[in-house]
Amino acid sequence: MLLIDINKESRVPIYQQIVDQVQGLIENDTLKAGEILPSSRNFADVLGVHRSTVYKAYEELWALGYVDSNPGSYTRVRKKQKMVPVDGRSNGGIIDWETRYRESVRAIINDPLPGERYREERDNVIDFGKLEMDTRVLPVDDFRRSMSQVIRERPEDCFSYGNIQGYLPLREFISKRLRIHGVAVKPDELILTNGSQNGIELVMKLLTKPGTQIIIESPTYSKFIPLMKYYEIEPVSIPMRDYGLDLNILREKLKTTKPAFLYTIPNFHNPTGITTTQEHREELLSICEAHSLPIVEDGFDEEMKYYGKVALPIKSMDKNQIVIYLSTFSKVLFAGGRIGWIAAEKRLIDRIARVKQFSDITSSAINHVAVNQFCEDGYYDHHVKRMHRIYRKRMHVMLDALRKYIPRKNITWTEPSGGYIVWMKLNKLSLTHKELAKLFLDNGLMVSHGDEYFETKEYGLHFRLSISSLDEQEILEGCKRLGAILTKLYSN
Amino acid sequence: MLLIDINKESRVPIYQQIVDQVQGLIENDTLKAGEILPSSRNFADVLGVHRSTVYKAYEELWALGYVDSNPGSYTRVRKKQKMVPVDGRSNGGIIDWETRYRESVRAIINDPLPGERYREERDNVIDFGKLEMDTRVLPVDDFRRSMSQVIRERPEDCFSYGNIQGYLPLREFISKRLRIHGVAVKPDELILTNGSQNGIELVMKLLTKPGTQIIIESPTYSKFIPLMKYYEIEPVSIPMRDYGLDLNILREKLKTTKPAFLYTIPNFHNPTGITTTQEHREELLSICEAHSLPIVEDGFDEEMKYYGKVALPIKSMDKNQIVIYLSTFSKVLFAGGRIGWIAAEKRLIDRIARVKQFSDITSSAINHVAVNQFCEDGYYDHHVKRMHRIYRKRMHVMLDALRKYIPRKNITWTEPSGGYIVWMKLNKLSLTHKELAKLFLDNGLMVSHGDEYFETKEYGLHFRLSISSLDEQEILEGCKRLGAILTKLYSN
Repeated sequence: MLLIDINKESRVPIYQQIVDQVQGLIENDTLKAGEILPSSRNFADVLGVHRSTVYKAYEELWALGYVDSNPGSYTRVRKKQKMVPVDGRSNGGIIDWETRYRESVRAIINDPLPGERYREERDNVIDFGKLEMDTRVLPVDDFRRSMSQVIRERPEDCFSYGNIQGYLPLREFISKRLRIHGVAVKPDELILTNGSQNGIELVMKLLTKPGTQIIIESPTYSKFIPLMKYYEIEPVSIPMRDYGLDLNILREKLKTTKPAFLYTIPNFHNPTGITTTQEHREELLSICEAHSLPIVEDGFDEEMKYYGKVALPIKSMDKNQIVIYLSTFSKVLFAGGRIGWIAAEKRLIDRIARVKQFSDITSSAINHVAVNQFCEDGYYDHHVKRMHRIYRKRMHVMLDALRKYIPRKNITWTEPSGGYIVWMKLNKLSLTHKELAKLFLDNGLMVSHGDEYFETKEYGLHFRLSISSLDEQEILEGCKRLGAILTKLYSN
Repeated sequence: MLLIDINKESRVPIYQQIVDQVQGLIENDTLKAGEILPSSRNFADVLGVHRSTVYKAYEELWALGYVDSNPGSYTRVRKKQKMVPVDGRSNGGIIDWETRYRESVRAIINDPLPGERYREERDNVIDFGKLEMDTRVLPVDDFRRSMSQVIRERPEDCFSYGNIQGYLPLREFISKRLRIHGVAVKPDELILTNGSQNGIELVMKLLTKPGTQIIIESPTYSKFIPLMKYYEIEPVSIPMRDYGLDLNILREKLKTTKPAFLYTIPNFHNPTGITTTQEHREELLSICEAHSLPIVEDGFDEEMKYYGKVALPIKSMDKNQIVIYLSTFSKVLFAGGRIGWIAAEKRLIDRIARVKQFSDITSSAINHVAVNQFCEDGYYDHHVKRMHRIYRKRMHVMLDALRKYIPRKNITWTEPSGGYIVWMKLNKLSLTHKELAKLFLDNGLMVSHGDEYFETKEYGLHFRLSISSLDEQEILEGCKRLGAILTKLYSN
């Protein structure tokens, strides 16, 4: 007979005491697999409890996998499958995952991650590669107060899933703020996304299927390229000139293609830094209107026009509602909140909201509520002005230093009218990007290499220099290093 | 000649003064479209400035779209396209978006949103429909302190994009926490997602393509269904019995199908509330191992085992690494942080990270860092224990009230061993879900109706009752109302 002590004074129910003790006996191997437990009638008699109590305990032991019990048969101790520790696993498992991936996934997952291709952890490197804000200049204390305030005052807004288009007061703020940039959209024509990358994907999800063509600038934003590959989209590349995408080539291409949309970055274009003129924007809009071709306008850096006015977003002239406008707080406030947005025709926003709902339900409500408080209290305006002062100076240092240290012969670069990036081209060099990256790294420098920004093969040796996370001293030192490397390279 | 005043003492550069004033004259219509501006030589002479200064001003005016200028020709005032106000748009725009959507999008976007089909804003309604935590019982102050602390102490972790698998210390915490549930995974075998919905989508993205079959329980999680439709997946439904999915039918189906994975919710199954036994889990695992069929195990409510032990996750026995385990903080801490995770074989996690990177780069770093602080400081353990006490009592009240108020004849319901939900079936009634929903609403009650949980047609009239956002009083009152409605309905 089993050695079990029942304490009828205990707060633990009797059936639970039976479960716990039998379980202990099985786990310490006192009771071995195959052994027969007493019948519930016998056991109840011995323990002095009701038969139904034992019955309930046996049911629980069965549910927990400790015993087998079949109607009309004995209750036996089961051979229980053990928890598998990390080193108890078969190495790599029995499934060859590589053969299970969707073909388009297989085609990209062995590529290096965009932005990671040539990066290495090294000491004392000046990193012109990252396009991410300098946390040293962010409004940490102001944001902390906003966050703390909203958690205290509006926990039900912070902690719930929230509205499927994102927190309404923040959409109201963005709607007002966009007027500064000439864009008139109502809060219900906005949806908040997990950064503008999520916005790009949502638009692709709605408007493309495998084989769909879309028009892109070449070069273009590096993380747009694997996304197109995933969705099996056929890109139609239009070359970037120093004034923006080539409109004549666009006109030609539109004679023979029927793309789902055109993707453009009119301000501080990533990676070239080019900003298009008002005239270029009007002409582009008019071509697309004539073809009923939606424009996906990526205004990721709209707020960083620190050299004064630049042309207004294409969206500002969009009376026929063909422009889907994307932007984000990531490049002016912070990326870790993952707050971007899409502004577009109301029905399209409704549809995007549905697709987003079963992708990730909503974006983080707590971040929406906190950023809204920060904006409503005027910290955002103040912060943008401060960023303008800081980055205007940094860009000034950058452009001066490039003029001073970089040999002019065979090297060209863009001089942006805002934002963070300069695009440099090295002519007449027979080096691969990999070799160039190694040379830079060995001399204490990282940049973002040009081959990430072209969807097929690239023509020429380009790289992108970002000053977003560097201060003036670091920029100056980086330019000196870059100048020394390039001077030596061209003198060979 | 133009009336322009140049102030040479001003800190505003002279070219900018010219730009500003000419722009003003054009905007107030003093200068009209088509008018010719003075040549740069003449204008420079009149103003007493260098010709290159005027030239630079004209270039800027051109870039801003105020003038046309062609080489060897006059500079003329342009007819500038105006910013379009909200009421200046063509109604609905020139693109018929409905015809532009991907077919699978068209097939679902006119469906009501899952969870919204029969919801209405009414006063004084008891809402058994929402599966969202009660913000009244959440640890608002403790979380506020954690958030405040990390913004102050680790702004660089909070404000940046962060690690593509999510904040490492939080992955370390989850790795330790999973051991309580018998699961041994290393932090690099975890990726943090925007809630478990995002985890589900990422797995689908990797392992399916249009036409792929996957095995689901019927009924199943309502937001899984439109996602399958979007990805054009062919569902193979296995009926749920009162002990879990029918393993015999599964065995039969596997003779003729080659699915990409099987999706199961073994604890407090959504929507039925059923928890499977250890034996069922072992058998399911063994069938899937024999077919090299990946299991996607949704442990969304793993932490809410407040009635004592239930069987361990299937993942705990996964020595052959076929189980992809999903869970979330949404149903135990809060949904507004959007933190879920996937635990799976290391290479699979690497691949998921790549696909996530170009979907939305990373999940919100600031939320990861804050939740990690909350967990590390012991608030999480304390909170889970408190939730257990609160919801054990609430579920007790619920089950007692159902027994007391609901007529037994023709009505059945599940009695869950944890979590938040009870699934009720009404037999022998010829009512539609819509009629039932109206009847409930008119009597101050909302529930989640059964037709959202079946991928095709449903057999019988079911609904889900969730106690997640109701206190004991509300639950009691809701059950009374439900009892009154059902008693009346069956007495007709």
